[in-house]
Parts: sequence; C-alpha cells; structure tokens
Amino acid sequence: MTQSATLNVELGDRSYPILIGEGLLGDAALLAARLRGPDAVVVTNDVVGPLYLGRLRDALGARISGVHVLPDGESHKHLASFAAIVDTLVEAGANRDTTVVALGGGVVGDVAGFAAACYQRGVDFLQLPTTLLAQVDSSVGGKTGVNHPGGKNLIGSFHQPVAVLIDLATLDTLPDRELSAGLAEVIKYGLLGDRGFFGWLEENMVALRRRDRTALEYAVRRCCDMKAAIVAADEREAGRRALLNLGHTFGHAIESITGYGTWLHGEAVAAGMMMAARASGLDDAAMNRIRALLEAAGLPVAPPHVGAERLRAAMQLDKKVLDGRLRLVLLHDIGDAHVTADFAEGALAAALASADG
Amino acid sequence: MTQSATLNVELGDRSYPILIGEGLLGDAALLAARLRGPDAVVVTNDVVGPLYLGRLRDALGARISGVHVLPDGESHKHLASFAAIVDTLVEAGANRDTTVVALGGGVVGDVAGFAAACYQRGVDFLQLPTTLLAQVDSSVGGKTGVNHPGGKNLIGSFHQPVAVLIDLATLDTLPDRELSAGLAEVIKYGLLGDRGFFGWLEENMVALRRRDRTALEYAVRRCCDMKAAIVAADEREAGRRALLNLGHTFGHAIESITGYGTWLHGEAVAAGMMMAARASGLDDAAMNRIRALLEAAGLPVAPPHVGAERLRAAMQLDKKVLDGRLRLVLLHDIGDAHVTADFAEGALAAALASADG
Repeated sequence: MTQSATLNVELGDRSYPILIGEGLLGDAALLAARLRGPDAVVVTNDVVGPLYLGRLRDALGARISGVHVLPDGESHKHLASFAAIVDTLVEAGANRDTTVVALGGGVVGDVAGFAAACYQRGVDFLQLPTTLLAQVDSSVGGKTGVNHPGGKNLIGSFHQPVAVLIDLATLDTLPDRELSAGLAEVIKYGLLGDRGFFGWLEENMVALRRRDRTALEYAVRRCCDMKAAIVAADEREAGRRALLNLGHTFGHAIESITGYGTWLHGEAVAAGMMMAARASGLDDAAMNRIRALLEAAGLPVAPPHVGAERLRAAMQLDKKVLDGRLRLVLLHDIGDAHVTADFAEGALAAALASADG
Repeated sequence: MTQSATLNVELGDRSYPILIGEGLLGDAALLAARLRGPDAVVVTNDVVGPLYLGRLRDALGARISGVHVLPDGESHKHLASFAAIVDTLVEAGANRDTTVVALGGGVVGDVAGFAAACYQRGVDFLQLPTTLLAQVDSSVGGKTGVNHPGGKNLIGSFHQPVAVLIDLATLDTLPDRELSAGLAEVIKYGLLGDRGFFGWLEENMVALRRRDRTALEYAVRRCCDMKAAIVAADEREAGRRALLNLGHTFGHAIESITGYGTWLHGEAVAAGMMMAARASGLDDAAMNRIRALLEAAGLPVAPPHVGAERLRAAMQLDKKVLDGRLRLVLLHDIGDAHVTADFAEGALAAALASADG
C-alpha cells in the first residue's frame, strides 16, 4: 500500500488522524493499530460489502466479532437500521472496548457512527469511507445520525471517529452517478471558501471524472484539509462550521420531499447550491461559472418541480432554523460564503421559483 | 414556594444547578428562567401527568409547545418510546432552541433526556424529578438512555441537563413501594462512601418512611451533594463514578431476567447491594446492619430464585464488563467501596447462590 498524506483533526483529547492512500483497506498493521480493544464489529452495505469486506477480513481476521450489512441507499438511513445495528452489537457480545468499523459511504458512516455513539453510551468508531462523498465530507467531523420523515438527520449525535482511513482505490468501483454526487461536495469547498480551488476544479473536472488518481488525491486532500480546519475551530457548529451546509438547507428539502434516495444527497446539494447562489444575488458571470462547473461534474442545476411553497415549508423544519427563523448560507462571491438570517425575501423567492413547474 | 438549597454540578461550560425546595413546579419565574428559547416540550407519564402537568401548564402557559405522555413503568423505557418522543418534537415544530422538560421519575428522565440528546444532535433538557429515586440519583449526572432486551441502558448518551429542579412536595403522592425503591439508592450513598450518613439513615428510616419533610430534605440534599461531587470529578465514568453502580450489576441482571418493570429498579438494586456485600466477604455484623436497614426501608434483601448461572450470564452483558472481564463494586466496609475485577470467585459464587431455589 502507499500512504500519501496524513492530516489531523485537532480536537484536544478527541483529536484523530485522516490517512489518505491506496490499499489501506488491506493493511493489517495499520488497521489493527486503530483498535483499542480486542474486537471490531463491521457495518457495511450490500453493494460495498461484496467488494471490500473480504479485504478487511483478510486483514483483521478473528478480531471481527460481527458484521452488519445494511441495504444500500439513503432510504435505509433511519432509526430501524440503527436499531438493527445495535442488535448485531449485542449478538456479537460487544462491550465498551469494541470498535465499530464503518465500511461504506455516507449512509453507512452516519448510521454506524450513531450506533457507536449510543451503544453503551459510546464506543470507538473507525471510518473507512469508500465513496468520494464520504471521503471528502461525511466521514470527517463526527456528525452522525439518521433521517426522520420530518427531516434529514433529525436524530443524531456528535461522535468523533478514532481515525479516518481513506483508501482511494475504492473509488475505482464507484458508479459514475455516485462519483458526480461526491463532486458536488468537492465543488462546495471551492464555493464556500477557496476561489483558487474552484478554479483548479474548473481546469481538472475532466480528469476527476475519468478518475485520474493524482487529481482525485489532490481534491480529497484539499477538501479534508478544509474540513479538518473548520471542525477543529467549531466542532459543534456554533458558527463557522455552518458554512459547510452551503446548498444543504435547499438540498435537504429536496431529499425530504422527493423521498430519501430518489435524488442522491450530492445531487440535491448541487441543485441547492445553485438556489443558494441565486438567493445570494450573484452576477451572471459568477452564476454561469457555478452552473458550468456543476454541469461539467454531471450534476443537476435546478430542483425538481415540486413547487416553491412546498420546498419552503420543508426548509422550515431544517435544523438550521433557529428560533423559527430561516438561516441560509449565502455567497458574497465564489469562494466567500456567510451565514445569515437577514436576506432579501425577493431573492429567496426567486430561488424557490425554480421549483415551480 | 420555598427553596431550601442550591447545589452545583461543576462541569465547566456544562455546569448546572440543582435546586431543592417545595412548590418549585408552580414557580413560573423560576421555570421560565431555565428556558433558553421560546418553547418547551414536556415529557411525562400517565401517572405523574394527571397529578402535576396542570401546575406546569399554569406556570409556563403557551410556552409549552407540545406534551408527550408515556405509559408508566420501566417496561416502556425502550427505543419505541424514544422514537415516539421524537415524533412529538417534530409535530411541535421543535428546533435547536427548544427545551425538553422531563416531568416524572427515572424512566421519564432517562428517555426524555436521550431524546433531547439526539434531537437535532442535542437540545436543552430540564429535569423535574418527581420520585425519590430520580431526585437522589437519576436526574443528576447526564446519563440518559433506554433498555434493550439484551441489557439495561444499552442504548444511550451522556447529556447533562441545564438544571435539576427538585420539588419535594411531589413526594407526597409517591406510592409507598416507589418511596422504598428510592430509599435503596439513598442507602447506596451511605454504603459506598459515607458511614456517618449510613448511621443517620439507621436512626431516621422511620421518619423517612412516614415522609417527614425535614428528614427527606436532608437525605435528598446529602445524596445530591455526593452525586454532584462524583460526577464533577468523573463525568464519563472513567473511574470513581463507577462506585455509583454499587449493587447495579447484580440489580440490572435481576431486572433483565425478570422482565423490566416486574421488580422496580430500586428493589433490584437493594437485592444487588446485599449480593455485593456478600461477594465482598463482609463480616456478620456489617451484613446484619445492611440487611436490617434495607428491611427497615421495605426492600427485598435477596434476588428472585432465577438460578445462579442465569444471573451470572446476564451480568456478563453489563456495560461494566470491560474486555470480557466482569468488574464489580465491592465493599471494604460500610462507607468504603471500590471497583475491582480482582475478586474471589468463591465469594461471587456464594453471592450468586442466593438466586438458586
């Protein structure tokens, strides 16, 4: 295996490393060093499991005391999946020294992480993200949880992993649609805080989509770098971390209305970022650059025609609604985002209008 | 109303007060001052609600945006109750500024606290304990959670309340059996760390059982004082806090085997403390004092006849089993407890034998 980078999420006694490389999933010593106790319970899904669980079994052997396989997809990110993982932990005889290992994408990481957060009031949790979206975003930062019919991630916990091991080789088997969904979060980092990275993405989107390993490695490292810095500065999202929700209030509403899993999370975020850009009142030149980059990534640039009012109602239940007041992540410009409850109603209405038929 | 004492649980930016007095439930200003946002969702049960919810409604009025009434009893402390409370929070339009108010005993506090811990990854939580057990033990310290068929409190979270308001007047309506169950936890404090308080309890048990207000106030304050100090020193139970589990590893096994709610938690802890005392190899004089005090409190002093081996198996799943090794809270003497994995197997066997027919 080749390990190309180590980043750190600095959170005092809950600090942890992000290792990026190729073949990490098969590195027995690397994996074993992350287990505090004798055993691990692996949570994966029925797409990723057949591809990569064997490598993990070869590496960890009898230290795997249980395996839980979720059905693939966002529609299974609910409390029943959480409960089923807890059942598996009990059956495996898991105790406080057991490590829960999440092998998969954002859904697996979020649900497994929530189970680790709550099992016996918290056990260790190791992230092995196998999708681009999970590698650049959801596996880092300790947000865990499940969806509720009333809203996305309504039930959850902050529970930091003990480490994030990113094996870039897993991107080889990622379906094109999932790769594009991950690129939505990658573009988000450029949009919210790094105009230079946004420009790099415009130049390298073709290389990223043909899975050029060097380009992917750079993009993953750059995003993890930004995420680690933001999480270290604001673990509980009291301020700056909310910038990472760019496009997400709109996106969560799309996911909630269309039914979780119909739109991939990254697709909904892509359309959501376009709506956020419009609500920000950006000029045509900036709007065109954002639209062009999302399209180059193979992503939607408008919401489904569910109706502006329905979208607005779903947004009101978003976790970022404080004191009943809608707060949005808006853009001063590409690379310069801010959180505000003080936006022009007309601009929001114009953005929501794109959901009308 | 009369407020007789204020204690503090010192946990840095998560510090909070414990207020003890009479009539606190009807004190509008006192209650309102504890709500950070505009609204509160009250969780109670079908025994406590009819008695005290009206007072809370009179005091908080329209600030109560939702009420969830659980069925009474430990058998309802499960994940389905947690999910139902979350549904109520969604229906009430609860957001991050909402406060979850637990009005009831240990079950209400534990389940409501867990819902507060997980709703939108954590909202404020106010404890209004109405049973002696909740007032002296479960409402302080931030342990929240629900039971699983595989073990007690297997699913949960550490989530400190913003305040604990103890209205001693609520003890007037507590059934005798529940009062005795609460006294088990009171006796626990004497046994684990305060020989003088144990002696005071021997002298005042009759007054406590006839609900002498002065005696109850002293006992509640003394227990909360000890609990606050222990929690401040060891919030996450890395060490000393485990002493509070005296009798609980045995007790949880009794509850799990007999079916949650058949034995009250305090009753199981009473029998568990006797077993712990026996496993500690205390002399006859000490054993007789412990037995006599538990009996004076109206508590059982032996486990049900479920069989020693069955009890031992259930204990193995207890959260305190680290690395597969059973750890017990044992006594050097009355008022002097310690945690150990290094105990005489023969002494444990003698304690478990009391569960044989």
